[in-house]
Amino acid sequence: MEPIILLNEKEYDLRLSRLRERMEAGGFDAILVSDNANIYYLTGRVFSGYIYIPSSGEAIFFVKRPSGLEGDGTVYIRKPEQMGESIGLNMPQTLGMELDVTPWSTVERIKVVFDMCELKNASPLLREQRSVKTDEEIALIKKSGMKHEYVYRHIPKLYVAGMSDLELQVEIEKLSRLEGCLGQFRISGDSMELYMGNVLTGDNADIPSPYDFAMGGGGLDPSLPVGCDGSVIKPGSTVMVDMNGNYTGYMTDMTRTFALGTIERMALDAHELSISICSELSKCIPGTPAKEMYERAKKMADDAGLGNYFMGHMQKAGFIGHGVGIEVNELPVIAPRSKDILQSGNVIALEPKFVIPKMGAVGIENTYVVRENGMECLTNAPEELIYFSE
Amino acid sequence: MEPIILLNEKEYDLRLSRLRERMEAGGFDAILVSDNANIYYLTGRVFSGYIYIPSSGEAIFFVKRPSGLEGDGTVYIRKPEQMGESIGLNMPQTLGMELDVTPWSTVERIKVVFDMCELKNASPLLREQRSVKTDEEIALIKKSGMKHEYVYRHIPKLYVAGMSDLELQVEIEKLSRLEGCLGQFRISGDSMELYMGNVLTGDNADIPSPYDFAMGGGGLDPSLPVGCDGSVIKPGSTVMVDMNGNYTGYMTDMTRTFALGTIERMALDAHELSISICSELSKCIPGTPAKEMYERAKKMADDAGLGNYFMGHMQKAGFIGHGVGIEVNELPVIAPRSKDILQSGNVIALEPKFVIPKMGAVGIENTYVVRENGMECLTNAPEELIYFSE
Repeated sequence: MEPIILLNEKEYDLRLSRLRERMEAGGFDAILVSDNANIYYLTGRVFSGYIYIPSSGEAIFFVKRPSGLEGDGTVYIRKPEQMGESIGLNMPQTLGMELDVTPWSTVERIKVVFDMCELKNASPLLREQRSVKTDEEIALIKKSGMKHEYVYRHIPKLYVAGMSDLELQVEIEKLSRLEGCLGQFRISGDSMELYMGNVLTGDNADIPSPYDFAMGGGGLDPSLPVGCDGSVIKPGSTVMVDMNGNYTGYMTDMTRTFALGTIERMALDAHELSISICSELSKCIPGTPAKEMYERAKKMADDAGLGNYFMGHMQKAGFIGHGVGIEVNELPVIAPRSKDILQSGNVIALEPKFVIPKMGAVGIENTYVVRENGMECLTNAPEELIYFSE
Repeated sequence: MEPIILLNEKEYDLRLSRLRERMEAGGFDAILVSDNANIYYLTGRVFSGYIYIPSSGEAIFFVKRPSGLEGDGTVYIRKPEQMGESIGLNMPQTLGMELDVTPWSTVERIKVVFDMCELKNASPLLREQRSVKTDEEIALIKKSGMKHEYVYRHIPKLYVAGMSDLELQVEIEKLSRLEGCLGQFRISGDSMELYMGNVLTGDNADIPSPYDFAMGGGGLDPSLPVGCDGSVIKPGSTVMVDMNGNYTGYMTDMTRTFALGTIERMALDAHELSISICSELSKCIPGTPAKEMYERAKKMADDAGLGNYFMGHMQKAGFIGHGVGIEVNELPVIAPRSKDILQSGNVIALEPKFVIPKMGAVGIENTYVVRENGMECLTNAPEELIYFSE
């Protein structure tokens, strides 16, 4: 038998008490959590089932799989209808569910179990809660960042003349995995898909993709049209590497750009500007509106005459940064219409990138934790453009 | 500019006309498709947006991203509310949506756009349609099967004495990717997670996982508790390899078992029995109830005195096979309470596996296409237990 909760008691209590403050403020009598990312957040493990959290009293862990878990409040069920028996007469008046990610049919089925109550959307509440990381979460993100950095420092050694973007990506995948990268790229919602990350070179960097990532790429097949397309890395082109940093269940997001041969001035300038934008924005302190950060970055790009290439060229991304943690698309979102305000404990990836037609993408991405006096970088691989040996 | 539909005209017409027959039989005036797997099925590409299919008249392709697509019925939108303008006065009375996979909030938002109409669940209809593959789909699955087979034939050469399960898996990942494996393991619904496949050895094969796969494994981290756990492959244990066969957007599913040192009789017998069950079940013809196939396999395991180890030991899977195609969990399901009936054109993975405590998992998995006179195997790597060189 194994304990259902892998978090230490203090950490579990901290996360639960913060959640209950939010539940009270939002008018939730109870919430029912079933998304893997939220289950992992609340217990330190993924299981198949539901966590029922009343505004007071003990949480109930309804487990379908795996077998062999135990601990206070653990109840094995085969189907959601069985939850009613455990909750019994203490049915909540208002129940929160993760309506932004739970399929419609699942919600309707569970509504029947909680017959009398009002349904509310708990997705925003959980997203907000998870956007402010605890010290233990930050420690896991830091650990991922250190492994991520180790892999990135080795990338120049993985390059062999004549390689394709795919061949380089596969070498990075291999090294990452051997260093303990879990591979899984958790993204909230199921319309975003990506396998392990993105390596873009030359023209391919300018191919629009259907996914809402900062950069695109045509991909290897129209069933997964994003990322490397098998092009040989040519002299006079850049190679942007944005590979998965999920080493602990918590991810860091990091991009570095490499180059082969002679790179034109505009691209070198754009790369330097990306570093400057990161450096400038990382001085932001709690209370800064996310949209101001976006505007500041956009203005720096425009002032340098590089606005046309900022965050894409043929197709542009609508943001320059995003929260990261268990999933890669967490809050806050650093975008023009964002209403998010920077908070201490946010962990944010900033990725002010440029696509230079024909040559490729340039720029960097770092993951930062927001502290009272500014942002601390957790992805400390060298930022300058690094040339591959020809 | 690129055409929105990558299928050839005849193939597109075939898929659409079959879908409309099902829509008519099910009483749908129109359906609105937004799931990546279904968008890929209907057009041959993934895009972000919706496909609106009225029971008669042309389909409308509402595209958010990527930019640059064109063709009859292509309409760019920024948000779903804009769909109303294009559909205008031809609002359907009953609209089908993929309610089993679309988040509750998304459905509620779209319901407002289609104000006056009755909402119906189109998920079963689309699952059934996709369970009967066209010749073009079967050709893509065959192509994946051939690449998959090539990789599996090389596995013994990838093994090096002293390797861990992870190190072997990483070598298989690398070879698969260099042969064009897209990596993405498409699974309907977002509660199932797996990175590229599963390599299980020794005790780890008996660790229950939260996911509804045939086999478990503890995994590398409680955030993704499935598959290899970093154990060294020891003499006297088996190594079950069940790695991703997505080379074309259509997957094959294949498992083979390898071994190191001396393997006990019971495990050898169980492996042979798995081969016999596959061989026996592959004689099934259209019209066979899926649950009869399950019962036949279960009886063969029980008759051999191996029922206790069949489909898991500490935790058992509730099925021995499943449809496969764009996603890995398609119809039919070969399970005790399945109501599915085998149809010509189904593509099915059969995986009668055994977990032998301490030693590991044994058995095979093949992907078959169901033909009028039986099932044709599309994954033709050698089935016998193959010993790694010590």
